[in-house]
Amino acid sequence: MNIGLLGHGTIGIGVDRIIKKRTDMAVTKVMSLVMDDEIGDRLAASIDEIVNDPEIDTVVEVMGGVHPAFEFVSAALKHGKNAVTANKALVAACYEELVALAKENNVTFRCTASVGGSIPWLINIERANRVNPVESLGGIMNGTTNFIMSAMTNEGADFDETLKKAQELGYAEKDPSADIDGPDVRRKLSISLNVAFGVLTGEEEIPTAGLRYVTAEDVKNAKAMGRTIKLIASAERKDGVISATVEPAFLTGDEVMASIPSNFNLVWYRGEDCDLQCFVGQGAGRFPTAYNVVEDLVDLTEGRTGFYTDSFTPASIDNSNVFRPYYVRSAVTDEYLASVTETTGEGYVITRPVNVAEMHAYIKAQIENGNPVFAASV
Amino acid sequence: MNIGLLGHGTIGIGVDRIIKKRTDMAVTKVMSLVMDDEIGDRLAASIDEIVNDPEIDTVVEVMGGVHPAFEFVSAALKHGKNAVTANKALVAACYEELVALAKENNVTFRCTASVGGSIPWLINIERANRVNPVESLGGIMNGTTNFIMSAMTNEGADFDETLKKAQELGYAEKDPSADIDGPDVRRKLSISLNVAFGVLTGEEEIPTAGLRYVTAEDVKNAKAMGRTIKLIASAERKDGVISATVEPAFLTGDEVMASIPSNFNLVWYRGEDCDLQCFVGQGAGRFPTAYNVVEDLVDLTEGRTGFYTDSFTPASIDNSNVFRPYYVRSAVTDEYLASVTETTGEGYVITRPVNVAEMHAYIKAQIENGNPVFAASV
Repeated sequence: MNIGLLGHGTIGIGVDRIIKKRTDMAVTKVMSLVMDDEIGDRLAASIDEIVNDPEIDTVVEVMGGVHPAFEFVSAALKHGKNAVTANKALVAACYEELVALAKENNVTFRCTASVGGSIPWLINIERANRVNPVESLGGIMNGTTNFIMSAMTNEGADFDETLKKAQELGYAEKDPSADIDGPDVRRKLSISLNVAFGVLTGEEEIPTAGLRYVTAEDVKNAKAMGRTIKLIASAERKDGVISATVEPAFLTGDEVMASIPSNFNLVWYRGEDCDLQCFVGQGAGRFPTAYNVVEDLVDLTEGRTGFYTDSFTPASIDNSNVFRPYYVRSAVTDEYLASVTETTGEGYVITRPVNVAEMHAYIKAQIENGNPVFAASV
Repeated sequence: MNIGLLGHGTIGIGVDRIIKKRTDMAVTKVMSLVMDDEIGDRLAASIDEIVNDPEIDTVVEVMGGVHPAFEFVSAALKHGKNAVTANKALVAACYEELVALAKENNVTFRCTASVGGSIPWLINIERANRVNPVESLGGIMNGTTNFIMSAMTNEGADFDETLKKAQELGYAEKDPSADIDGPDVRRKLSISLNVAFGVLTGEEEIPTAGLRYVTAEDVKNAKAMGRTIKLIASAERKDGVISATVEPAFLTGDEVMASIPSNFNLVWYRGEDCDLQCFVGQGAGRFPTAYNVVEDLVDLTEGRTGFYTDSFTPASIDNSNVFRPYYVRSAVTDEYLASVTETTGEGYVITRPVNVAEMHAYIKAQIENGNPVFAASV
């Protein structure tokens, strides 16, 4: 297998180094914005040089971002090359087009590393679906926020200083919004549920609340109830209706997810026969992510083709039947909050079970009005 | 795919019911000691009727026990039929012979459900090894003892009453020794490390201590140190030397394994690139176990053949370089225990790091001498 590698940053260098130890595949051309010694004479001047190279049968895309990754991967597929990517932004945004393009050109498109980093997640969903349909799934899909919440829980620290520490350690980006506001998790949940349920849904349909406004006080309040705060993704298909949310949750201390440390991820699915299956591993990082990219490549050499599911039915997210009680800390008690409050604590309330879409709309409106509400399902 | 099913008990009925919902395979003959309505006219009079049936291409063995399971599976392989089993006793005892026989007859032998029940364990070890060799593995491999330890930890109950409750709930056998003395875990660890490291070792080489003598006092002492007691399997290959133990361990409260509830299993492996990977699921039970049997069958229909590893190098377990501190509660303080004691608590001691084989030999001798010592690595 001869590979054209698009991107030679954190993940790209990892992929390159792992493949250098193998005899069944080689990276023969590399596209990179930055030249480095490891690339040597493999540097390609343009995507054309890679897609027109008849020796290259497979393209690995680890540049990140939707554009020009989409155009490059599309060009590769159109030229009859298999494509493997770790790029969740690309997969979440262009899932349908890329799979269709791969099918049209009779090649394979795989993206196991795009959700859960090192975790054998999408491929085990694919496996489970062969025997029992996955009915629900979810988990802790973002290592940065899990690192922040673990540190806040263990050390009683406040959000801003913990985020700063995470940035210094390289766990969080300079602009942390994709992690702390939830879109990174929303993307991974969208890919997961589309693969698991064999559907096409838009990620923007998933109600998403992040951790930007969590405080040491919230962590303390959760602890007093024997709970741990985590940012949780979840999705379910029941009687053909798909529901999904991304939101902070108060987990009881004895739940496995409550004990997932540092920057690890936990993802889970449930099926009728296999029951609950959880997977824990590094959700990011050079070698863990590159590892799963190379696993996809080995699958290709072993003749495993296609996407993770054969069915791609357009579908919508419908949360109208999902009700949960919420912890809400708000500087203002308005009419709505008063109407759903069941118990009142110092500076916060616990609501009766309310519709999740309704609560997410309320949180969003409050934040837009300058009231930094923090809410978490209980 | 036409299947001859050996055994129609808990797991066998599960396999039969899951396959009845499928169109790509059918159970056409059943061997069972007990006739039931679900078997109908498929009851086979003898193993000969199954292995001589040219319509049957695959045999599923879920009878349990080494004999006559070994003779039956051997006969099937010799007659050119693939074999799938969930029987850990069989795999642990006859690993080498069965794999050799399958290779000789150009058929497949798979046993994913034999370790971890529903968990995609052996197949993910196989997958990881394609990119980075598994370096170490372990976990909580017995749901019965995990149920007992969870109940003792949560309720402060004593061992005997909790065991009795587990027996009433069907989680523990009438003769619980395979679970509580450790041989069940030892078997699963032996299969796991043989597959992971591509070796042939005897299960009896693994030093094994169980939970028979754990008391509510031990649980209380562990809690006072912020620890939780679990029965833990672990194995490592380092510089070509394989070490392995099965023993109770004091886990810190924030370890993921410490929070595995009820009768769930957690198994983990670690590789250089993929780092730590954990899998949590039901380790036993009708449908969870049957589920993984059917997954093996689907793999066969998709042309995945062979065992989980190509290498079968005879090897020994060597713990001479493994040292750990131990919690030891003993009615007697003898010279040896005094010589390794680092700190003393009420009725127990914590030792300095001692060689694990040495400590296991000491525990065994004490118990044989009528002193029911409980020891756990700390």
